[in-house]
Amino acid sequence: MDVNAFLESVRTERPLVHHLTNWVTISDCAQIVKSLGASPVMAHAVEEVAEMTSLASALVLNIGTLTADFIESMLKAAQAANHRGIPVVLDVCGAGATTFRDRMCQKLINEARIDIIKGNASEIARIAGLDVRTRGVDTAHVATDLRALSVDLARKSSCTVVITGPVDIIADTQRVLAVQNGHAMMAEVVGTGCMAASVIGAFVGASPQDLASAAAAGLCCYGIAGEIAAQESDGPMSFKLNLLDCMHALGAQEIAERQRVEP
Amino acid sequence: MDVNAFLESVRTERPLVHHLTNWVTISDCAQIVKSLGASPVMAHAVEEVAEMTSLASALVLNIGTLTADFIESMLKAAQAANHRGIPVVLDVCGAGATTFRDRMCQKLINEARIDIIKGNASEIARIAGLDVRTRGVDTAHVATDLRALSVDLARKSSCTVVITGPVDIIADTQRVLAVQNGHAMMAEVVGTGCMAASVIGAFVGASPQDLASAAAAGLCCYGIAGEIAAQESDGPMSFKLNLLDCMHALGAQEIAERQRVEP
Amino acid sequence: MDVNAFLESVRTERPLVHHLTNWVTISDCAQIVKSLGASPVMAHAVEEVAEMTSLASALVLNIGTLTADFIESMLKAAQAANHRGIPVVLDVCGAGATTFRDRMCQKLINEARIDIIKGNASEIARIAGLDVRTRGVDTAHVATDLRALSVDLARKSSCTVVITGPVDIIADTQRVLAVQNGHAMMAEVVGTGCMAASVIGAFVGASPQDLASAAAAGLCCYGIAGEIAAQESDGPMSFKLNLLDCMHALGAQEIAERQRVEP
Repeated sequence: MDVNAFLESVRTERPLVHHLTNWVTISDCAQIVKSLGASPVMAHAVEEVAEMTSLASALVLNIGTLTADFIESMLKAAQAANHRGIPVVLDVCGAGATTFRDRMCQKLINEARIDIIKGNASEIARIAGLDVRTRGVDTAHVATDLRALSVDLARKSSCTVVITGPVDIIADTQRVLAVQNGHAMMAEVVGTGCMAASVIGAFVGASPQDLASAAAAGLCCYGIAGEIAAQESDGPMSFKLNLLDCMHALGAQEIAERQRVEP
Repeated sequence: MDVNAFLESVRTERPLVHHLTNWVTISDCAQIVKSLGASPVMAHAVEEVAEMTSLASALVLNIGTLTADFIESMLKAAQAANHRGIPVVLDVCGAGATTFRDRMCQKLINEARIDIIKGNASEIARIAGLDVRTRGVDTAHVATDLRALSVDLARKSSCTVVITGPVDIIADTQRVLAVQNGHAMMAEVVGTGCMAASVIGAFVGASPQDLASAAAAGLCCYGIAGEIAAQESDGPMSFKLNLLDCMHALGAQEIAERQRVEP
Repeated sequence: MDVNAFLESVRTERPLVHHLTNWVTISDCAQIVKSLGASPVMAHAVEEVAEMTSLASALVLNIGTLTADFIESMLKAAQAANHRGIPVVLDVCGAGATTFRDRMCQKLINEARIDIIKGNASEIARIAGLDVRTRGVDTAHVATDLRALSVDLARKSSCTVVITGPVDIIADTQRVLAVQNGHAMMAEVVGTGCMAASVIGAFVGASPQDLASAAAAGLCCYGIAGEIAAQESDGPMSFKLNLLDCMHALGAQEIAERQRVEP
């Protein structure tokens, strides 16, 4: 896979990525998109979400600090995105922690077309109907094969499924990709999961013709930026700063040397 | 213009700057005010905005993540500020992106006295009635003379108008100032536009007798801090960190050497 | 007091700390908990707060950007925490600035059991019924003995009271502790007060059997991290970054050398 070509598309196209996301990591999500050379916008008023989506190349939804009203705005934005044919990414942040989250995820998935469902292992397991309990927004152990889980959900929901973790798994109805890039430090920082969804949004916004490959390329670049950032960090916050700087500076040679996307 | 005297006023007076602002950059806005030695407060409940404004020296409104309820709180806060005679700064963040934003901006401008309208070129052009479309919150090309645009809007609205960009333009009904300080990196970082409004709020809060000069002095200091920060930054996030540190450390000699305010 | 043992409990137990907090510092609060090795979750929808609290080891409430609806969610979460017997920390951020804040604090204190009331000097004085006015969220001078103030409020409210400042005071109905650790730079950074409440939440979540000691141990570690961070910082933002990194790296020897908890 030519990961660098996907990155260059983001930098050339500069897609506008519309977010309805959570209040904890909203600034990080905006900055990672900006660091990629793309353009973030965050807007959630029910009166304007459809019109804002009409300017965008991708829509990213994240339920981290959801409310019922916010889900209504998400639904309206997703339906506008569906109407225009731009990709919709849903980060099912905290699915499996409460029944309300589970219900709201199902509402979004049932009442709009979600192109990419993204979560950690226990969140995706919960969306797939397994009886797991997510511990807040941190993943819980899932005693199942994640590859099979992602493929099953992708087929059942006719969408692309992304499970983030030490190895990121990306499945659509046809195939499965695995991204081995990344660093353990990413699990120690608030916002790395949410930023991954925003990275996917920027990459699929620039390359909507192949969602799974674009998502894998995005996660590969993000993971490589994490690997480089970890080399010069003294702790989680300097790591996060370096991650955002490295994403901005990432070049073709670093990608060529480090890229680990399979198969 | 004695820019340093305006900065010293901020540090001596320590104005309380009340914000009703967006959720993306709210932390940055608070910190830039704190880095200046002033005191930020963020409060938006309709039950308390008027009372909180009664403690403040300036009010900063930013519609970045507006909702209809939030605009009601902004209006109440602005009217309380008008009643007390403290300056009100409105950042028309994203004006021109949706009709809802345009309508809410006009509501604020019509139903309260806004002392300073601040935005990028396409946002201000939209407020002035031109047929431009802002791309989310990033500026679009505006095929008009920005100086004339700012003067026209200032006269029409009887207020001070600030257009931020490579050159910042500050116009009131009597004159036009231009600030040449700043660095291209500022456009790569989320929050620099919003922080500019907060800087203006702190400076006009300390020097309310001459809004245009105070705003220009604030943007000059902010631009100089950006210039110094860029010298030691590896990317957008380290730049942002350095910008906030440099604003805190900024001294009279750096201002004297770098100040570029005209005429 | 064996401060390091309390820190080790946090790192071993990894308590889930549920927050209903303000939008300004929400990311900082999440990261400081994560930097301690514990697990933050932020969720405020009235439909899910009770269920989310049922997964948690501690609940942290912070009224910084309160609304009436948000207080309803806080109350529901606090009552669920009371039912399960997990500690509830209330940061009375900005109490004394507006009558609405004062009223909402009293509502929470009257209608749920708050285990730890935490604030700066003027906030706590206001909660204790003194006629002081907080200047936004910054403390005002309080012409009273803070030690006596904390003891009186602890007895009156049958809870633990924490007054943060150059010296942190922790009182319960039986005794008073004072933590001398910390650095003046902490007052120049947005979010240090809010993060202190989150640190307390993580420590009492791991050691609920002795709230005052756990809170004091947490503030001691936080203050030591601040002291170390200040040695290598160029301004408020680099200080904040270093503070979050130092909290992550803090070791037994640094604690032994610097710990200043009395009596």
